[in-house]
Amino acid sequence: MQRHFDEELATLKEKILRMGAMVEEQIANAIKALVERDPELAQRVIENDHRVNAMDVQIDEDCLRLIALHQPMAGDLRFLTTAMKISTELERMSDLAENISERSIELNEEPQLKPYIDIPRMAQEALRMVKESLDAFVNRNSELARSVCKADDVIDDLNHQIFRELLSFMIEDPQTTTRAIRISFISKYLERIADHATNIAELVVYLVEGKIIRHMDV
Amino acid sequence: MQRHFDEELATLKEKILRMGAMVEEQIANAIKALVERDPELAQRVIENDHRVNAMDVQIDEDCLRLIALHQPMAGDLRFLTTAMKISTELERMSDLAENISERSIELNEEPQLKPYIDIPRMAQEALRMVKESLDAFVNRNSELARSVCKADDVIDDLNHQIFRELLSFMIEDPQTTTRAIRISFISKYLERIADHATNIAELVVYLVEGKIIRHMDV
Repeated sequence: MQRHFDEELATLKEKILRMGAMVEEQIANAIKALVERDPELAQRVIENDHRVNAMDVQIDEDCLRLIALHQPMAGDLRFLTTAMKISTELERMSDLAENISERSIELNEEPQLKPYIDIPRMAQEALRMVKESLDAFVNRNSELARSVCKADDVIDDLNHQIFRELLSFMIEDPQTTTRAIRISFISKYLERIADHATNIAELVVYLVEGKIIRHMDV
Repeated sequence: MQRHFDEELATLKEKILRMGAMVEEQIANAIKALVERDPELAQRVIENDHRVNAMDVQIDEDCLRLIALHQPMAGDLRFLTTAMKISTELERMSDLAENISERSIELNEEPQLKPYIDIPRMAQEALRMVKESLDAFVNRNSELARSVCKADDVIDDLNHQIFRELLSFMIEDPQTTTRAIRISFISKYLERIADHATNIAELVVYLVEGKIIRHMDV
């Protein structure tokens, strides 16, 4: 029974990593579509969101089935309820990739305001956070999880920087307002993606160390 | 054992409703502080957020303890894992009430841009959604939950309307840009509070009917 349970846990971890890879691809493609002004790719991101949603539902059901069937002890039980929460966080990230794509399709209907430099950098940082938070989960690595929480500050700084720059565009030339606001939304969506990665990392620290860092400064 | 479990479930429901009431108060006070230009009240909302966080942790622990101790059957198990997810949604709403308060403190440092009419209306609608989604949960009322999901459209429309109005302010007079953007953030935070209420309502429909409406049009 225990061996069977361990095998099922391993399969679950794989599924979560697979879902994570799908979400990373969604985010990366959303930013690629923005930078390369490729509305078809943006549309594909929007259409692929349902695949991430289906994974979320499946992981949830797997966890419930494992709990009901194996009635695991405290540690494994917490691992499974954490997995359920993590798949929700991933699903929300995919929604944000969809939001990025929507804004990028709108932006594509007007001339480009400026070349994108900080947004791809921010996306790259956010993607790293997503990947590392999931690695931290499957390997129960709370040190890695704590480093993800710290990286969130970099993202917040980039978001503020982008916002201030766009604000000056808007004040100097009101004609840029609509475009600048759309770009600031995208920056905000990336910040929220990083927040979700941070949520995952905080869940991992709690899972491994039993310490709640969710609601305090790390 | 079953009677004891039922009593514990009743206590858990009470706790969730109490947490919900706290979150509603946080949101209502955040908007009151904005409209009445009362930065002290806004500050109080920010300081009270940790009380909501503590409730979230406690509800989570209660659910885990109930699952481990009583090894409930499928229906009750799903109820408990849903409760864990709902307390996360409530905690996120309180974070957004905190964000509203931060913007409202900033806005208070400058003259008022315009009287607030749509924002309080939007807040009222969002508060009703929060309340009804929780009532739907404790009473397993999927019809009420479905009506919450539908109400989300009203909020989205209000958010767009507020945004368009603020955009015209910014384009006509760039001096208003910073303030207009802060107000548009508040409108966006309220929209996200309503999204969290919708998430709760969708969880309730799934709990009661076994149907996933999370990822489709209701």
